[in-house]
Amino acid sequence: MSGEASVRSAAPAEQALHRALFEPRRIALIGASADRTRLTARAQLYLRKHGFIGDILPVHPREKEVLGEKAYPSVADIPGAVDFAYILLNTPQVEGVVNAVAAKGIPAACVLADGFAESGPEGRALQERLVATARAANLRILGPNSMGVVNLNARIACSVNAALEAESLPAGRIALVSQSGSMMGAIMSRGAARGIGFSHLVGTGNEADLTAGEVAGLLVDDTQVDAILLFLEAIRRPEHFAALARRAHQAGKPVIAYKLGRSPFGAELATSHTGALAGSDAAAEAFFRAHGIARVTTLEGLLELPALMIGRRPPASAHRAVGVMTTTGGGGAMAVDCLGVAGIEAKAPDTAAAAALDEAQFPHHGRLLDVTLAGTKPDRVAAALNALQMAQDTDLALSVIGSSAQFRPQDSVAGILRARDAGHPKPIAAFLVPEAPQSLRLLAEAGIPAFRTPESAADCIRAWCDWRAPRAVPEAAAVSHALPERPDEADARRLFAALGLVSPFVVLRTPEDAPQDLTWPVALKILSPDLAHKTEVGGVRLNIADAAALKQEAAAMQHRVARMAPQAKLTGFLAQPMAKGLGEAILGFRRDPEVGPVVMLGTGGVTAELFRDVTLRLAPVTEAEAWEMITEIRGLRPLTGWRGLPRGDLAALAQAILAVSRLAARDDIAEAEINPLIIGPEGAGVTVTDAWVVRTAGR
Amino acid sequence: MSGEASVRSAAPAEQALHRALFEPRRIALIGASADRTRLTARAQLYLRKHGFIGDILPVHPREKEVLGEKAYPSVADIPGAVDFAYILLNTPQVEGVVNAVAAKGIPAACVLADGFAESGPEGRALQERLVATARAANLRILGPNSMGVVNLNARIACSVNAALEAESLPAGRIALVSQSGSMMGAIMSRGAARGIGFSHLVGTGNEADLTAGEVAGLLVDDTQVDAILLFLEAIRRPEHFAALARRAHQAGKPVIAYKLGRSPFGAELATSHTGALAGSDAAAEAFFRAHGIARVTTLEGLLELPALMIGRRPPASAHRAVGVMTTTGGGGAMAVDCLGVAGIEAKAPDTAAAAALDEAQFPHHGRLLDVTLAGTKPDRVAAALNALQMAQDTDLALSVIGSSAQFRPQDSVAGILRARDAGHPKPIAAFLVPEAPQSLRLLAEAGIPAFRTPESAADCIRAWCDWRAPRAVPEAAAVSHALPERPDEADARRLFAALGLVSPFVVLRTPEDAPQDLTWPVALKILSPDLAHKTEVGGVRLNIADAAALKQEAAAMQHRVARMAPQAKLTGFLAQPMAKGLGEAILGFRRDPEVGPVVMLGTGGVTAELFRDVTLRLAPVTEAEAWEMITEIRGLRPLTGWRGLPRGDLAALAQAILAVSRLAARDDIAEAEINPLIIGPEGAGVTVTDAWVVRTAGR
Repeated sequence: MSGEASVRSAAPAEQALHRALFEPRRIALIGASADRTRLTARAQLYLRKHGFIGDILPVHPREKEVLGEKAYPSVADIPGAVDFAYILLNTPQVEGVVNAVAAKGIPAACVLADGFAESGPEGRALQERLVATARAANLRILGPNSMGVVNLNARIACSVNAALEAESLPAGRIALVSQSGSMMGAIMSRGAARGIGFSHLVGTGNEADLTAGEVAGLLVDDTQVDAILLFLEAIRRPEHFAALARRAHQAGKPVIAYKLGRSPFGAELATSHTGALAGSDAAAEAFFRAHGIARVTTLEGLLELPALMIGRRPPASAHRAVGVMTTTGGGGAMAVDCLGVAGIEAKAPDTAAAAALDEAQFPHHGRLLDVTLAGTKPDRVAAALNALQMAQDTDLALSVIGSSAQFRPQDSVAGILRARDAGHPKPIAAFLVPEAPQSLRLLAEAGIPAFRTPESAADCIRAWCDWRAPRAVPEAAAVSHALPERPDEADARRLFAALGLVSPFVVLRTPEDAPQDLTWPVALKILSPDLAHKTEVGGVRLNIADAAALKQEAAAMQHRVARMAPQAKLTGFLAQPMAKGLGEAILGFRRDPEVGPVVMLGTGGVTAELFRDVTLRLAPVTEAEAWEMITEIRGLRPLTGWRGLPRGDLAALAQAILAVSRLAARDDIAEAEINPLIIGPEGAGVTVTDAWVVRTAGR
Repeated sequence: MSGEASVRSAAPAEQALHRALFEPRRIALIGASADRTRLTARAQLYLRKHGFIGDILPVHPREKEVLGEKAYPSVADIPGAVDFAYILLNTPQVEGVVNAVAAKGIPAACVLADGFAESGPEGRALQERLVATARAANLRILGPNSMGVVNLNARIACSVNAALEAESLPAGRIALVSQSGSMMGAIMSRGAARGIGFSHLVGTGNEADLTAGEVAGLLVDDTQVDAILLFLEAIRRPEHFAALARRAHQAGKPVIAYKLGRSPFGAELATSHTGALAGSDAAAEAFFRAHGIARVTTLEGLLELPALMIGRRPPASAHRAVGVMTTTGGGGAMAVDCLGVAGIEAKAPDTAAAAALDEAQFPHHGRLLDVTLAGTKPDRVAAALNALQMAQDTDLALSVIGSSAQFRPQDSVAGILRARDAGHPKPIAAFLVPEAPQSLRLLAEAGIPAFRTPESAADCIRAWCDWRAPRAVPEAAAVSHALPERPDEADARRLFAALGLVSPFVVLRTPEDAPQDLTWPVALKILSPDLAHKTEVGGVRLNIADAAALKQEAAAMQHRVARMAPQAKLTGFLAQPMAKGLGEAILGFRRDPEVGPVVMLGTGGVTAELFRDVTLRLAPVTEAEAWEMITEIRGLRPLTGWRGLPRGDLAALAQAILAVSRLAARDDIAEAEINPLIIGPEGAGVTVTDAWVVRTAGR
């Protein structure tokens, strides 16, 4: 098995790396211990235990032999070529050995030790030197802080993960790439208990060189892989994940992620644990969505979702609805309730499904098809599920099984198998209400999605409805507009005007300047690249009626601000007509430290902050995405004709979102925001009332 | 065992009912089948299988013997007293048999058949006749649609639930009362797989007579019971649950509920399934909270929470924070993240915990105490947990265990046991990251809370932090104020004024009436008991400057409304000064169909509706509860001095909540609302700007 090439099509360099990582025949274990109780002995023990038939080459400074294998005093002493080196030494010894590994011409190495980038500036510098050495020698590095590589089909268990203590592990067709080594083992063990086997398991740790996205990318074309799971603490190189997701979509293989950082405490930990910078979870969510990576929020869902997605394409347009049949009233109602909490509606049969149910002589009414009286005979269960599959307005047919799953596994599963074999393209799935390990295993073996809890059922079905093809990234040329080093509000407004968001304003250099072409009354603001919060230093005055009052207010403002913010450089005054509209939005652009440029829309004023009424997309966006964003903001609903209220110019808002998202192409811009953007009545456009922009440091 | 009285203290009638339901010695099985494959044979088979040593008395119209027991042609033919009758007949036969059971003087019966109140008016009438018959004969009924009664310690398995197919079931000290019979079996089977045993399991079905609250109340004083679990589809008799909760609190026994209806689809199903009326889930949540009933939202949590609560009292005031230690970085971070999503903060050690950790020589920094390097030796794990228990600002110490839980269960559990034995009152708990059934079982047997998934861990710990003693119901005399049969807005305002919420208004009977004592400008509204939406029929005009304009507007309004709503009875006009304040609230009272009187507070205007920014409490409320409600409303935060904004008169708002909640004592009032209630600056009070009240039908 390990001798055959399992990669169908990939660039030669990738093929070579795939071979070195996943099908090595000669593995150096540098720092392998002869003491079986030591962590550093495990890789050797596990390799043999799980049937590795290649050469194990322990490197040990003193021993001639380690656990029955001939040992070498140094990497250089190993005769012949080596495919893969697992460096098991302590942190201070790693650098010297990486040099030796590079000199030996080994194509791939894995570093177990931690204490690199996550430990502070010194560790970061050390990590950077490792990578520089490796790059120069075409050596690819997994880790530091990596639990190694497992390829169950090829009987390669080159890892120190204790999960490999298991006497045997079921091989399967799902690959797992995990930034956390311990979660790699935990997920494997949880899968094994369900009869869900893995093909490959890789711990990518700190990702000094190889990222989870890149490693997963190597597995897309592997003929032994049907789906790729990611356990992520941070997204370090978003372009790797984007490339992976595109290739996986082309290959028809789903990518499913569980990512930490949904809560601020988790985000803080995940990044301190890995040495990466934390982005916002909303940005990560936007990233997964844009790239067609399904995200689960339950641990069990990570194991249960693959069967639902393997061999399927993302639904063209999801109804976010399911048909549900049950052999247990209470359990069925519980499933419907949990689905509802996740935003998925259990729908009563539509005309097509009702006709099929009538033909099969099932009485039906309401959201839940209770077949308890009809019995749990396989042909009846199959008929009911096939009838529910006929519905035009659902995305899945769910069977909720009661006690038969516990005591008559074969029977309870037979109906679902038969329903599947009818070949209708709409997926079917099962939630087993009692403890029913045998039925879960039978369903897993048959490749039918089966859920152990109502919460994971709802999570997976929600993820299935959310699944989209990777989006086509819209073209967006960089707007050509020069910005000073430290822009003030007028500069920000000129930038937005260059993007097409023109709102009237004039700049006065001194209080004596006579403004031209102003519509009264106006607002007056101090201009300064140093003042982010103008109101607090008395730098804003509203509703100024005429030129005389303006002159007076400007003079007073100059004195006030100079006194309250003596360090601020004052560049003049900005006057603009008082704007009124039907609503306000906040529209911003920033570069998320994990996923890169994003555009943000929210309700204006304090509402966005009080209710977290904001939505994000990767920038630049398409017009369809801009409209989606508008739809997601609850605070903008009154502008959509809700309750007979007058409609706002949401078309202009959509164009504004598009425009702002184009800042993605301007690497010199770190952040920009309009707050508020005032939305006028339909046809009246939008007005920029306050704006700022921050340049990227050093650009 | 079954011969001894297991109830410590209860009224004689209760003791007798407890004996009949849970320790019957002579059980009649009416409609028992001689065919072992029939559902109606199961009760007899399961009773014998699980070791019942009393008399089984099958009633069968033709057979002399049923499955080896002497059978009787009718209930009347059974010699001697009978403790309990399980009626296994079809719906149409039930009524006749209940009459016979009542005539025989049997104290308790259970009805298996469905097709009663949940099936429509005929079924409802049938059910009411059953109950009337039973009441007249002092017969208590479980069901209809009940799966029966199980008392594992007494070896009574009087149920048709297929979960009793299991060869043996672990007896324990947790009682389960379930409205769903199938969930009763599913929960039992899931518990058994974890080593979590039950004392009693009861299916209450339709609850024509005995409710889940009443049955659970019978078990509070049972010496074999440490905790009571409820699986609920509807709350039918809230007073039963309130009484249960108070008694359970006095007895120091936690009550834990899983209730359907968190989503509208689930609520719809739960009620159509049981024939009950649906209340709102927010009202159910308020109900559980008021009565000190802990609510879980994960199915697994229902099994996992008891160990955390048994033997403990509700935390006096929860920090909503935990200390977390781990032997697996990624798994620990995942737990911290899930806790954060549930609103529970994993806190870094405070001074006290840090001192204890220093003394035990644990390096520590940040939110997660990673002891991986310190090893998983029991004494180290115990030392770390005991140190975390020292924190003054946490509610629990959580141990997140990695692969040792899978491969060295004894070892991994030993440290936690040792930590527990140190006797610190702060609870400790464990989340096992890999598949680790043996460790879960060992912890369950030791009575230590152990979680199988990060989601159920977060759910249970959140429920622990939310747990409160049942509240003392505040005294609230009914306000004495007469209301007409069909009140208009002026009547509603007079009612609120009687409650202490006085806001100026005048009533004009005709447009010609000259208003006295008005502060201009005013708002003018049509008065009518028939018009809930005055604006839509032109019945509201704002900002009227003086008496002349008012007269003109009133005349125009009369014509307009008469044309647009010709059926409405018009009772005059209401004029009130235009009010301005710092914010708006909606304040309402209603009677929830499940839990009874509730008071509701939300932000005013469209915000409450757009963002569901509302909170509920059982009415009447205490002042502390009123302040809690204010704190929970995000839209009121700007009035709390947030960001330097001027403070609103929240003390007046709290008094207004108290006042409105006193409507609970007025049975003649079904609903009442002030919307908006305008909140003035501190000291300036609140103003009722619109109000309505609806009387209870038939009172």
